[in-house]
Amino acid sequence: MNHQFISQDLAAIRANAPLVHNITNYVVMNNTANALLSIGASPVMAHAPEEVTDMVAIASALVINIGTLSKHWIDAMMLAMTAAAQKQIPIIFDPVGAGATPYRTQMCQALLNTARPTVIRGNASEIMALLNADIKTKGVDSTQSSTSAQDAAMALARLHKCVVVVSGDIDVITDGTSTNLVKNGHPMMPKVTGLGCTATAMVGAFAAIQPNALQAATHAMAVMGICGELAVAKSAGPASLQLNIIDAFYNLDATQIEATLK
Amino acid sequence: MNHQFISQDLAAIRANAPLVHNITNYVVMNNTANALLSIGASPVMAHAPEEVTDMVAIASALVINIGTLSKHWIDAMMLAMTAAAQKQIPIIFDPVGAGATPYRTQMCQALLNTARPTVIRGNASEIMALLNADIKTKGVDSTQSSTSAQDAAMALARLHKCVVVVSGDIDVITDGTSTNLVKNGHPMMPKVTGLGCTATAMVGAFAAIQPNALQAATHAMAVMGICGELAVAKSAGPASLQLNIIDAFYNLDATQIEATLK
Amino acid sequence: MNHQFISQDLAAIRANAPLVHNITNYVVMNNTANALLSIGASPVMAHAPEEVTDMVAIASALVINIGTLSKHWIDAMMLAMTAAAQKQIPIIFDPVGAGATPYRTQMCQALLNTARPTVIRGNASEIMALLNADIKTKGVDSTQSSTSAQDAAMALARLHKCVVVVSGDIDVITDGTSTNLVKNGHPMMPKVTGLGCTATAMVGAFAAIQPNALQAATHAMAVMGICGELAVAKSAGPASLQLNIIDAFYNLDATQIEATLK
Repeated sequence: MNHQFISQDLAAIRANAPLVHNITNYVVMNNTANALLSIGASPVMAHAPEEVTDMVAIASALVINIGTLSKHWIDAMMLAMTAAAQKQIPIIFDPVGAGATPYRTQMCQALLNTARPTVIRGNASEIMALLNADIKTKGVDSTQSSTSAQDAAMALARLHKCVVVVSGDIDVITDGTSTNLVKNGHPMMPKVTGLGCTATAMVGAFAAIQPNALQAATHAMAVMGICGELAVAKSAGPASLQLNIIDAFYNLDATQIEATLK
Repeated sequence: MNHQFISQDLAAIRANAPLVHNITNYVVMNNTANALLSIGASPVMAHAPEEVTDMVAIASALVINIGTLSKHWIDAMMLAMTAAAQKQIPIIFDPVGAGATPYRTQMCQALLNTARPTVIRGNASEIMALLNADIKTKGVDSTQSSTSAQDAAMALARLHKCVVVVSGDIDVITDGTSTNLVKNGHPMMPKVTGLGCTATAMVGAFAAIQPNALQAATHAMAVMGICGELAVAKSAGPASLQLNIIDAFYNLDATQIEATLK
Repeated sequence: MNHQFISQDLAAIRANAPLVHNITNYVVMNNTANALLSIGASPVMAHAPEEVTDMVAIASALVINIGTLSKHWIDAMMLAMTAAAQKQIPIIFDPVGAGATPYRTQMCQALLNTARPTVIRGNASEIMALLNADIKTKGVDSTQSSTSAQDAAMALARLHKCVVVVSGDIDVITDGTSTNLVKNGHPMMPKVTGLGCTATAMVGAFAAIQPNALQAATHAMAVMGICGELAVAKSAGPASLQLNIIDAFYNLDATQIEATLK
């Protein structure tokens, strides 16, 4: 991975401030919005069926996250995904808790049938559950290592003709043929609720300005890992990390990227 | 602007702990509640149509914010605004993202037709969109400077017989005749999601104890700007600022107000 | 109270990472999830009627919190409580704002009639309002001291055959016969929105691994008070406290418990 390409994408986000439209869960909305603002994007959260099509029309990327799903929200996600597919802006999909309940797994399939996502990002359990509905997961936390899900990720990428990201100790990013690994990050990161959701939104910001989805997703995950490491170094625990990683997004520069990228 | 009048209002909030009823967006609820608690008010978030009238009955101000609007929430806002108008408590209205989609602009007009707000607070794009439905904005971030919206703010204030606040580099607060400017604040503030929403809630706290709405709104915006400056001085980035401004509300005293007010 | 028993329960949470299913309010979801993760539990937030029964089926405790209630959410809470009662996992109930509006008080009674909670945790006003529907409270903040509600707590515990926790300067924990007092804590804690909700979720984590509900609730409240004190010592205000208490949960060890427990 080339640190200069990451820095170029980061500069493009800051220069263009792409509007990233999020239909996401209640738990992470504040942190997702702050992360997007800090990296240089312009976030908007909107879920009313009466307006999601109009919001997509002015957006540069759509982020769909089912964390606290309910029927009305799924309906709005479908409308937004259909509009985004027609407009050909990137759709980033986060199947939070896929495999935890049949409803989550079914709604994931319904959304995947609505429009092809550009990138799917999940933890190992979620990605495996998307490929095989018989896989059961424990709530929203993964019970599998990310690298154990590499084959599933590649198969899922080929099935949906998209890029799949499995986040974990080592992030796996694949289009079904080529696979990138991101080795940055820190074990404290899963102790912060919704950092995976932040990663998904970050992929949205990068995909908004980088047309190569494999590159966009890889660069976003590298930024997550790099900023995670920089933030942990200043953090006494997960709440400090949640704060410091957002400050790190804001302050991230090419020198830090070059020095920290593994 | 007289720093002593700001300090007197702050003391009145702390002495009375007015109940501020918020029907606001998911993104900012936690920060809004903490900001109100820290300044000395008592926040409550309630949106069920079955209870908003009863909650207004015990509240000293009503804050309406359409950030993550949907039909059911708009219905509840209308019920609450009607009750607040009957009870004659201040109604503070935040038209988040007005101009971004036709639905937002339409719902703003519907709410403005339900009951006259005491204060409307928005960024320049939102205020201009309320006056002219042809104005288009980019999501929830302003594309205009606050002072460029001064004429629109005055016209809007006269149209709705209310006070209008345009927040930005310089905050413009007007009743359509008299106009106050608040020059405190810092460019990092728009990098924190929902600090505008916090400002709206803060206007609610001041309006709950200060019957002169132009004074209340001006003092609230001065406190936002002063605490923003005090917080930025301790902050490595926007997430630190989000935290430090709440601590600053909690610790704010007359000496700081006098020393920092521009 | 024996500090070693608290440490044993804490170790059991960390060893088992029990899944705690929360149907809670929008204001606190992020902090609740982070608090549960930091103490060592695995939180999940899910409220769709289509999945709550399935989520309860994999959970070790159910936390019900009516802070931003509405009809659809109450319906989901009833489904989840029924499933939890059948599965015999602990149900922890937080009657946020009971007494503030008739709707809140009525919905509390409807939930209490659906399934017997294992533990009810509220502030003094809320606990008194559950026992006597004529008690009126001011929004979500208590107007009574916790110890003044001790008789009401004991009566409520006997009425519902459950444990009742009244949080306040001194936390009262009773099963209607035996009563424990927790004297740890700090007056700044009520200035953080939703720390009571965090306490309720923490009771859920302890009840998931400690079958004696009186012990579980007492240990959870002791951990809240201890970590609150440790956090306040590092905090310049309520927002710092909100952050530092989560870091304190993460770092809490037997030595700190022994040294800080009153």
